[in-house]
Amino acid sequence: MNSKFNNADARTYSVVPNTSFISIKDESRELMAVWPDIVRDLTDAGRHLDIPDVTKWLMKVLQYNVPCGGKNRALTVVEAYKSLSPPDQITEENLRLTRILGWCTELLQAFLLMVDDIQDHSEMRRNQPCWYLYNDIGLTAINDALMLEMCIYQLLKKHFKTKECYVNLLEQFLSVSLKTEMGQCLDLLSTNFGKKPNLDLFTMDRYNSIVKYKTGYYTFVLPATAAMSFAGITDPEMYRQAKTILLEMGHLFQVKDDYLDCYGSIEDIGKSGTDIAEGKCSWLIVVALQRATPEQKKILEECYGQSDIEKVNRVKQLYQELGISNTYAIYEEETYNLLHTHIQQISRGLPHDLFLKLLNRTCRKIGRKD
Amino acid sequence: MNSKFNNADARTYSVVPNTSFISIKDESRELMAVWPDIVRDLTDAGRHLDIPDVTKWLMKVLQYNVPCGGKNRALTVVEAYKSLSPPDQITEENLRLTRILGWCTELLQAFLLMVDDIQDHSEMRRNQPCWYLYNDIGLTAINDALMLEMCIYQLLKKHFKTKECYVNLLEQFLSVSLKTEMGQCLDLLSTNFGKKPNLDLFTMDRYNSIVKYKTGYYTFVLPATAAMSFAGITDPEMYRQAKTILLEMGHLFQVKDDYLDCYGSIEDIGKSGTDIAEGKCSWLIVVALQRATPEQKKILEECYGQSDIEKVNRVKQLYQELGISNTYAIYEEETYNLLHTHIQQISRGLPHDLFLKLLNRTCRKIGRKD
Repeated sequence: MNSKFNNADARTYSVVPNTSFISIKDESRELMAVWPDIVRDLTDAGRHLDIPDVTKWLMKVLQYNVPCGGKNRALTVVEAYKSLSPPDQITEENLRLTRILGWCTELLQAFLLMVDDIQDHSEMRRNQPCWYLYNDIGLTAINDALMLEMCIYQLLKKHFKTKECYVNLLEQFLSVSLKTEMGQCLDLLSTNFGKKPNLDLFTMDRYNSIVKYKTGYYTFVLPATAAMSFAGITDPEMYRQAKTILLEMGHLFQVKDDYLDCYGSIEDIGKSGTDIAEGKCSWLIVVALQRATPEQKKILEECYGQSDIEKVNRVKQLYQELGISNTYAIYEEETYNLLHTHIQQISRGLPHDLFLKLLNRTCRKIGRKD
Repeated sequence: MNSKFNNADARTYSVVPNTSFISIKDESRELMAVWPDIVRDLTDAGRHLDIPDVTKWLMKVLQYNVPCGGKNRALTVVEAYKSLSPPDQITEENLRLTRILGWCTELLQAFLLMVDDIQDHSEMRRNQPCWYLYNDIGLTAINDALMLEMCIYQLLKKHFKTKECYVNLLEQFLSVSLKTEMGQCLDLLSTNFGKKPNLDLFTMDRYNSIVKYKTGYYTFVLPATAAMSFAGITDPEMYRQAKTILLEMGHLFQVKDDYLDCYGSIEDIGKSGTDIAEGKCSWLIVVALQRATPEQKKILEECYGQSDIEKVNRVKQLYQELGISNTYAIYEEETYNLLHTHIQQISRGLPHDLFLKLLNRTCRKIGRKD
């Protein structure tokens, strides 16, 4: 079943080098080198010759929304493939295909962000106006997002149709899309559709479910398991073990994201945070509610989920009174260490250094800020 | 290659009976009998046990948006399968699967309509408020639509994964979705993103492209070719011939839809028309522009694409002065007859009566109304 993997497993994995930061930069450059081919594949296919206005438009949508992010997910695909594939399979052609697979995860990310930004009334994304606000595009941006979503499957068909992993890849992207949308649904139900949120719903259990579905699957599970499929791994137990660790990583990643939404600078995160004003079920508010006295809870109920800047600041002040920032630093330290331990416990032959590398790239510690 | 089809082809096709109207009703009932199982499949899968709020919500979304339409696309799937499959394959189990496939086309339709209604600022759909206006759901309705889209692939995986046609079905649904979104893009580009449309763009060529992509593929080509795949047909020439006829039918269907948007009653179409106010590139305005004097064109430029009721009425009055309604009746008669002829010319063994039945159900003549 997993003969290919056993080959991979047998070789010596190199220890994560100290130059890993440089190699991320290099890989990011390699990904960008493939990008023009992706755009050409999707807009010059020769099959939609009768609607040149649309292909021209699609080119703009692709260019504005896809390549300018951190490419975390694409980097995960490439790192995972390089680490998991039998060495004799790591050819230039297979690396090219891996990068195309990486861009498929970035297309999914772009699609999801474009739609989220509309639903959350966000203004900035990646240091530029959100697409729906750009040139008064408005709600037709929804359709643009949908085209990007379907571009994934055009690329998979063009480049992976003859590969054994093709159906698996289709199913992984499709099922993770549904899971992410279910997570988004839970998130939106929690905010009471942008009206006053019901803070009684903001339990840690609910938070954990939102994060697992809304972030963990598409940010960690999909990139790694898509690479596993392309690397020829078929053992279900390996997928199960990978998924457990990856969802744990997704959790830490999202808690950090929630922290930065409140405490990060605009330069750090490419936008200004909106979680408090939008009434989001964020890690910070859940912890705050766990600790608040009845009086403090009353203040949160009055102020959370309102765009009035004074109310937002009142919430932030309460976070400070409750020492949330410090709690975050402790949580981050402990979870990071716990993840380290869990990675060491992976028993099914998945390379530990891959997961350590992933952890270090995506969940680098912020530490205390207050 | 197409041995299964040759079996099908060899049998005598029964002539479309005069009771076809009754049999549509019966089939509609059969489809509804499968609906509760569809909802159960999608919400009781046991895999999302940890987010019961979402599955409960999804149930509401499904119930409100999917089963209450005319089920034209699902009916096409069933009719096509019954007509194309070798008789010994038409078992109760295969008919059940065919109806599930039919519901997949209805899920696609529901998803597309929900998003279109948001982008077009529509108010009513199928005689009820549009989902995004229901209970102040607002833009979170986008995510609900996305969940319905992904439900298609859950159903295909659950029921067709072991069938030979599985990958074909996935690819057909995915590629038709992209084509439809490209058509929607062309439509939105033509209306200048809901701002003043540029009437110089409203040529018959452009109209034909919009209709082909936005309507033809998902309303006619997908339901029929999905059924062909499930019936075991593999001959590409048969798909090519079917597609040509089906796109032609899609064209007539959309012209009729455009006509009814202006001249149909609310009871007829389940909503009040918005094409003039929204500045849509409709068949009526394209024909009007072909015939308008420079003075009349100036009036259209002043009044088309504005919600002001007086301006809408001025456009309608101009349509009357130009005799558009009469032109429609002639166009409908001629196109209907031409389609009849083209159906007779199908040479690759596809049953003519299937296409005649489709034509009669979906493009029934309206005739003159003025």
